[in-house]
Amino acid sequence: MKQPTEAGASVSLERLTSLAGYLIRQAQVWVFQDFNATLAPLDIHPAQYSILTVIRENPGLSQMALSQALGIVRSGVVPLLDGLESRKLLKRTAHVSDRRSHALHLTAEGNALLARADALVQQHEDRLIQKVGARGHKQLIDILKVFGRN
Amino acid sequence: MKQPTEAGASVSLERLTSLAGYLIRQAQVWVFQDFNATLAPLDIHPAQYSILTVIRENPGLSQMALSQALGIVRSGVVPLLDGLESRKLLKRTAHVSDRRSHALHLTAEGNALLARADALVQQHEDRLIQKVGARGHKQLIDILKVFGRN
Repeated sequence: MKQPTEAGASVSLERLTSLAGYLIRQAQVWVFQDFNATLAPLDIHPAQYSILTVIRENPGLSQMALSQALGIVRSGVVPLLDGLESRKLLKRTAHVSDRRSHALHLTAEGNALLARADALVQQHEDRLIQKVGARGHKQLIDILKVFGRN
Repeated sequence: MKQPTEAGASVSLERLTSLAGYLIRQAQVWVFQDFNATLAPLDIHPAQYSILTVIRENPGLSQMALSQALGIVRSGVVPLLDGLESRKLLKRTAHVSDRRSHALHLTAEGNALLARADALVQQHEDRLIQKVGARGHKQLIDILKVFGRN
């Protein structure tokens, strides 16, 4: 019979650690903490980094296209864009084909900050490689790419 | 030059989808939504399911050992335990070796509900297998097990 345990480290987690869903959640906790710690010098959180990279890759896209692509509700995207615009990292211009909409562009400052963020994100990703191994990291990307688009 | 995009589906996400950290986050969003939808008939959320399985595997463990094992701060565990106790799924008894602490046990109702939850969690995990393939699922567990314990 199992003895009462006092330290978390000796607690059996056999059921949970047999579930990929649980492990994905635990990995995400690590990713979130490490990403935020790594990007803290630039004051850039994961959602902000995502938005900046997508605008860089898709200059002129609309707020709606951005929110759809990232799977963030539009009411969640607007305050994030407001914050990035007030930091002069992006600008909204009138959209070519839909004057009710805005076209999103990075500023020169936005591009410069994103380049610095990219370097830090690579450090974060390198730490993830240290956790799971280079082969595991490649496999992860291959397995999880099905979740890459909402 | 890239045209302005209107639909999220045509937005390029090349940078993000090359990052394992981003894909883990996106996978976790899917897992969370599917888990909650699947377990909704039992009104059991991921943290509650985790707690119940750990108490089943480690009868008599303390609140502190539970919170350490799951990486949930103690102030977060207590209201979860209160809720499960008020639903008569678990009971707290005086701890054998530390009378200031409580020993956690499932009730018969808790064991019965958890058995039903296990069956639904398996359905959820099966849907994850459909998303990533049986081989991908096995690889995921193998790669991510390093995150299984805090």
